[in-house]
Amino acid sequence: MMGTKGLLLIFDGMGDRPVPELGEKTPLEAADSPNLDRAASDGVNGIMDPIAPGVRPGSDTSHLAYIGLDPYRVYSGRGPIEAAGIGLDVKPGDIAFRCNFSTVDEDMVVTDRRAGRIVEGTDQLARLLDGMEIEGVKVILKESVAHRGALILRGEGLNADVSDVDPHEEGRPLHWAKALDSGSEKTARVLNELVKISHEKFSEHELNEKRAEEGLPPANVLLPRGAGKLSQVRTFEERYGIKGAAIAEVGLIYGVASIGGLDIIRVTGSTGGLDTDAMEMIKAAIRATEDHEFVMMNIKGCDIAGHDGDAEAKVKMVEKIDRAVGYLLSHSTDDMYVVLTADHSTPVSIMNHSGDPVPVCMLGRGVRVDDVKEYGERSCSKGGLGRIRGSDLMDILLDLMDRAEKFGA
Amino acid sequence: MMGTKGLLLIFDGMGDRPVPELGEKTPLEAADSPNLDRAASDGVNGIMDPIAPGVRPGSDTSHLAYIGLDPYRVYSGRGPIEAAGIGLDVKPGDIAFRCNFSTVDEDMVVTDRRAGRIVEGTDQLARLLDGMEIEGVKVILKESVAHRGALILRGEGLNADVSDVDPHEEGRPLHWAKALDSGSEKTARVLNELVKISHEKFSEHELNEKRAEEGLPPANVLLPRGAGKLSQVRTFEERYGIKGAAIAEVGLIYGVASIGGLDIIRVTGSTGGLDTDAMEMIKAAIRATEDHEFVMMNIKGCDIAGHDGDAEAKVKMVEKIDRAVGYLLSHSTDDMYVVLTADHSTPVSIMNHSGDPVPVCMLGRGVRVDDVKEYGERSCSKGGLGRIRGSDLMDILLDLMDRAEKFGA
Repeated sequence: MMGTKGLLLIFDGMGDRPVPELGEKTPLEAADSPNLDRAASDGVNGIMDPIAPGVRPGSDTSHLAYIGLDPYRVYSGRGPIEAAGIGLDVKPGDIAFRCNFSTVDEDMVVTDRRAGRIVEGTDQLARLLDGMEIEGVKVILKESVAHRGALILRGEGLNADVSDVDPHEEGRPLHWAKALDSGSEKTARVLNELVKISHEKFSEHELNEKRAEEGLPPANVLLPRGAGKLSQVRTFEERYGIKGAAIAEVGLIYGVASIGGLDIIRVTGSTGGLDTDAMEMIKAAIRATEDHEFVMMNIKGCDIAGHDGDAEAKVKMVEKIDRAVGYLLSHSTDDMYVVLTADHSTPVSIMNHSGDPVPVCMLGRGVRVDDVKEYGERSCSKGGLGRIRGSDLMDILLDLMDRAEKFGA
Repeated sequence: MMGTKGLLLIFDGMGDRPVPELGEKTPLEAADSPNLDRAASDGVNGIMDPIAPGVRPGSDTSHLAYIGLDPYRVYSGRGPIEAAGIGLDVKPGDIAFRCNFSTVDEDMVVTDRRAGRIVEGTDQLARLLDGMEIEGVKVILKESVAHRGALILRGEGLNADVSDVDPHEEGRPLHWAKALDSGSEKTARVLNELVKISHEKFSEHELNEKRAEEGLPPANVLLPRGAGKLSQVRTFEERYGIKGAAIAEVGLIYGVASIGGLDIIRVTGSTGGLDTDAMEMIKAAIRATEDHEFVMMNIKGCDIAGHDGDAEAKVKMVEKIDRAVGYLLSHSTDDMYVVLTADHSTPVSIMNHSGDPVPVCMLGRGVRVDDVKEYGERSCSKGGLGRIRGSDLMDILLDLMDRAEKFGA
C-alpha cells in the first residue's frame, strides 16, 4: 500500500478547432467517445494553456511544464532532450546536439542530409568518435533511428550558443559552427574539429566502401544541429518526494521524462502511429502505478492525424483512445487520481501545433464534480477548473493526491 | 495577397458596472447593439483584465500590454508617450516630460497653470528653447494643443527619477526639480536650468507683450511634469514579423502606437468626442488592412461619457459604435480576424477608470465559437475564452492568424 496515485494521460495534439466537414465540431466533439464523456461527467473539467494563452507549445516544452519544470528555464534547444530520449545520460552543463549521419561531396557540399536514409551501420560510425577527447572536452555520440543520432560535448568552458553545422538544405555547403556569444567559442571550435574528424574517419570506414559497391551514398560526415545546454534539474523524487514513471512512444517525450527524473517504461505494441496499441499502453500505465506514485503517459496518434490534416483519422484515433480510457475507468482504484488532457492542439486545418487551449479533466475521490457532461474543447471550458496553465497541473494533482506541502502556517 | 489580417478594435472605457437608472444593466447591456451581439454569437468570447485583476489601467498601459509590451518594463511615466504622441521621435534613453506653458508671478508662484488657456503662439515659445544645449544635454521642445507641450532631454548620464516642477495647484510656488535617486541629479540640474531660462526668454518675448496689452496672463514659464525614460523597444515588425498600423483620436494612444512601432493613420471626422465619426474610422481601419497585417483602433467616446458620469450618453455612444461594427461585419474578409474589446472600464458611477475586466470577442475562421449571444460584460464572462489578460491578447491573435512561432519541437 503506497497511498494515492496520480495518472496523467496526455493525448498528443488532441485539441482542435471546429471542422466544417465535421459539422463545425472538433474531432474530439465529433467522435463517439462515451468513456471520455463519462470521465468528464464524473470529474472536474477545464481548459488549459500548456504554456500560456496563445503560445504554441512544442511537445517537449509542454511536457516539461506538466511535470513541474519551467520550460523557459530548462529548455534551451532540442539537443539535450533528443540525447536523453535515446538513453544518453545528459548531465547539467553538457552541450547536446541532434545530428544526422550525412553525405558531403569533395567540396563539403551536403548532397544528402540522410545519407540515402541509411538504416544500418551508424552504430559502427558512432563508435569511431564516441569517447574521444578534443581540447579536454569529452565526445559522447550515439546513433538513433535511421540516419539520426545525438551528440554530447562534456567539459569546461562550454556554452550552447553556436550555429548549426547542418545547412538544413541539400546542395548547400556544410556550415562551420559559429559562436553566437563569447562563451561559446570553445564549443564552436571543438565542434568544427569533431566534424572534420568525422569526415576523415567515416570516409575511410569499410561501411562506406560497402555502400559505394552497392551504389549507395556514403555516410561520410556528422551534421550536428539544435545545440542546447542542460540546466541543473532536481529529480522528480527530489522535487516531490514520490517516484514517477513515463510511458511514451517517441524519443522526444522519453527525453523530457528522463530529464525530469521519471523512470522509463516501454510498451510492446506502442508504435507511435495511428495503429498503436493504446489498450496495452493503458494497461501498462495501471501496472506502473504498483511501484510508482505518479505515471505520465503520452499517446501520439492524434497529433499525427492533425499534422496530416486528416479529421477522419483523428476522430478514429480519439475513439481508440476512448476504449482504452473505458478500461482504465473500470480498473482504476479508489486511491487513484486520473488527469485526461493533451499537450497542445494540432488542428487539422493548421496541420501544425496551435496555441489553442486543451481540455483537461480531473477524476478521483473528492474532486469538485461539475456539470460538464462531455469531454471536449468547448464543453470543458464551462467546467469548474476554469482556465488553468500547464505549470499549474502538477500542483493541482499533488494537492488532490494529498501530497502537497503547505505554503505558510 | 498578404495572408491573414488582424483587426483590434478598442472601445475606450466601454466597460462599466450595473447602473440603477438603466435597470441595473450596464450601458453596454442596455444599448440596442444587434451588431455587437451578432459578433458575440459568431465568435469566441471572454473577459479580460487589461493589466491584472483589479488593477486600474491607464489607456497607455493597457494599450502597451495589448500590443505585446510589458507596461511594467516599458512605462516609466507619461512623458515619453505624450512626446511620441505629438510626433517627437523619442529614442531609448531619452528623458521625456509633459509640460505646460504657464504663468508665474515675480515670486515664482504659479498663478495660472494654463496661462489663460493660451491657444496661439506656444510654437514661438517652444522655438526659443528647442535645440539648445545645457551641460551637453540636448533640449527638444514642441508645443501641443493649447497650453500643452512635450519636452525631451537627450544626453549622457540622465535618469528619470526627478520630481515634477509643476506644483499641480495654482497659488503655490513652482517646485524646483529634485533628484529622487543619485542617477537623476544631472537631470534635475539641467531641468531647473531650463526652467529658469524659459522664464527669462518667455518673459521678454513679444507674444507676452501682446498678451499683456490684451489683459491676458503671460505664458512666462515652462512647467514640466511626468518624467519618464524610454526603454529599448524593438519595432512591431521586429517583434512579430508583420506590419502594424494604429488609428486613434488622442495623442496618448498615438504615443503608445508610435513607441510600439505601429504606423500612424489619422482619420478626418474623428474628433475624440461623442460626435466622432466612428463609421469613417472603421472604414479607414478596413482600408489600412490592405497594406498592414495588423491594425489597432481606439474609439474614445465611451470613456468620455464614463468620466462625465453620463449613462445615457454612454448608451448612445455604444449604439453609434454598433452601427460601425455592423459595417465591419458585412465587409470583413475570410482571412480577417477581428477582436472587439475595451482598454478598461470607466463606470459612470465612478467617473474614472476602474479595475473591472472588459468584454472581449474574437471572430474569424476556425475560432471555437461558443454559445454567448450578447456582447456584454456579464454575458461574455460565460464564453469559451474564460478570463484572460491584456498581455495574452497579441499571442492569441497571432496564433489565430497562424503567424505564431512554436516554442519547442
